[in-house]
Amino acid sequence: MNITIAIDCMGGDHGPVVTVPAALAFLSTHPDAEVILVGREEELAPLVEEAQAGLKSRLHIHNATQVVGMDDPPTSVRSKKDSSMRVALHLVKHGQAQAAVSAGNTGALVMISRFALKTFPGIDRPAICFALPTIRGHTYALDLGGNVDCTPEHLFQFGVMGALLASALDHTERPSVGLLNVGTEEIKGNELTRRTAELLRESNLNYYGYVEGDDIFKGTTDVVVCDGFVGNVALKTSEGLGKMLGTFLREEVKRGPLSMLMGLIAMPVLKRFKHRANPGRYNGAVLLGLSGGVVLKSHGSADAYAFEQAIGRAADAVANNLIRRIQDRMETMIGASGENA
Amino acid sequence: MNITIAIDCMGGDHGPVVTVPAALAFLSTHPDAEVILVGREEELAPLVEEAQAGLKSRLHIHNATQVVGMDDPPTSVRSKKDSSMRVALHLVKHGQAQAAVSAGNTGALVMISRFALKTFPGIDRPAICFALPTIRGHTYALDLGGNVDCTPEHLFQFGVMGALLASALDHTERPSVGLLNVGTEEIKGNELTRRTAELLRESNLNYYGYVEGDDIFKGTTDVVVCDGFVGNVALKTSEGLGKMLGTFLREEVKRGPLSMLMGLIAMPVLKRFKHRANPGRYNGAVLLGLSGGVVLKSHGSADAYAFEQAIGRAADAVANNLIRRIQDRMETMIGASGENA
Repeated sequence: MNITIAIDCMGGDHGPVVTVPAALAFLSTHPDAEVILVGREEELAPLVEEAQAGLKSRLHIHNATQVVGMDDPPTSVRSKKDSSMRVALHLVKHGQAQAAVSAGNTGALVMISRFALKTFPGIDRPAICFALPTIRGHTYALDLGGNVDCTPEHLFQFGVMGALLASALDHTERPSVGLLNVGTEEIKGNELTRRTAELLRESNLNYYGYVEGDDIFKGTTDVVVCDGFVGNVALKTSEGLGKMLGTFLREEVKRGPLSMLMGLIAMPVLKRFKHRANPGRYNGAVLLGLSGGVVLKSHGSADAYAFEQAIGRAADAVANNLIRRIQDRMETMIGASGENA
Repeated sequence: MNITIAIDCMGGDHGPVVTVPAALAFLSTHPDAEVILVGREEELAPLVEEAQAGLKSRLHIHNATQVVGMDDPPTSVRSKKDSSMRVALHLVKHGQAQAAVSAGNTGALVMISRFALKTFPGIDRPAICFALPTIRGHTYALDLGGNVDCTPEHLFQFGVMGALLASALDHTERPSVGLLNVGTEEIKGNELTRRTAELLRESNLNYYGYVEGDDIFKGTTDVVVCDGFVGNVALKTSEGLGKMLGTFLREEVKRGPLSMLMGLIAMPVLKRFKHRANPGRYNGAVLLGLSGGVVLKSHGSADAYAFEQAIGRAADAVANNLIRRIQDRMETMIGASGENA
């Protein structure tokens, strides 16, 4: 199968200097894939000049003159018809690519995707879904920042979509769905969690009940549902903690000549740990709920390695027929639940 | 100064088997302090029988026949007049102790404290405030689970209280206050963050602006304000991540004989790192906003070492005259701001 990925090269904190090398690295490990680099041609062309012929033949530059800024309000985004983000998504819409990857403005990406690629029937908004590493494997957490104000119905729909994703990707027959709360007892939480819990309980999903923050990385459930505000804070707080612990470990190793020697001797172990704990490895969140194509959101501050992972995830999703499998599952899984879907 | 701490010995996941040894360990390192162990006398007495005479003379058992369960609803808590939690707080109320420490039900602790010990004028609710470690030192984060539904006015008051605490404990003249959000741009967030930001901007606090999850452990501001739902999830997610990374590190060390040898050689470094990253070290959150005494909330699952840290924090707060210093600061700091306080 020929996979083509449209890349919003201008998005993110670093733009083409990160996205283009990441695309080249991706091509070199995916001999059947093609990429369309979307952005200002005059900025992109020099960055691919030196690429090997074998890669060059599988990359195309698609000029787009505008850029969605990281803090552009939604109104200005709408008027930027020729932004690299919008053009990349429209390449998917028109079948020229099967997936788009962007490290740009999250709110804009959610909004444009929703209009260009439509959501599945019964799903109001796409949610940002991340496969977070856990002690046992991974947990799909959503929403992680796409929707800061959610109704119980939205959270319920996230539960449905998360279960469909877990089912489609991991072949789990009935993925367990947990609702993130401040305690596991029934009386805990707020109006939103209580009403969402009711909807989940009444559905035919494999609803586990409330889970707490520490259940995410424990892998207590296959799917964890929360609103985008809470999810975004939890994700970024984890990121901050990871960085702090990394700093602590480095500082302890560098505390003196003896510690440095010990660190040097244990370097292979520390390197494997560092690789396993590197958040860049897990970069790339699915915009879940879109029926018209695969959209991957990369962390805005991703480096080339991390952005390459996000492109790889997009390619995997296409190769796995993610959209069709979700659609198929939807019919068997939700068809039975009736009006809840 | 003679410090007396009332300890709710029955609270938490483990009860007296953790709280009593922690109290004894605390007494052994604080020769001027006394503790009142509150709980079922028949359970507590055997646990202190073996204690040294020097410690025994500084500990008192105060019988309390009831226990607030970890998932008791607020209504049933009110009827438990002789619960160890309530009795411990009333010992503070009546001046028999200057501080209380509990690992019990957070909601109940906030509710009973509020009634027994009252809040400062202008403060509606006590907030759970934790000094989180950062790369540079620490950040006071609040609310971390006391109040799941907050108005902008509540969040504003948390900002005031956090600034007063930082000012009183760290002698920072004008502590910087950040408001936790999903982005730092002005358009980001929801109704609650936008309206709280307005109140903070108009106050005479040193308002920094929006901060994101990763700013907490970066130590971007002296104080980070959020509602109790978001704060609790962020804190517990961090806890879960810390545990997962600990597991990863152990697994990498145990991957084979060579790795184990490397780990053994680097053990002093790894031990120092483990000690520094141990969340138990930072256990003990202040119930901030109470005018009638110091109340420390320990993590429910705290072990004896962690619970001892919480008792130590309570003693520090008393020795530092926390309540009086907040009161003094309040007059100079808020007095000038007029109606905002």
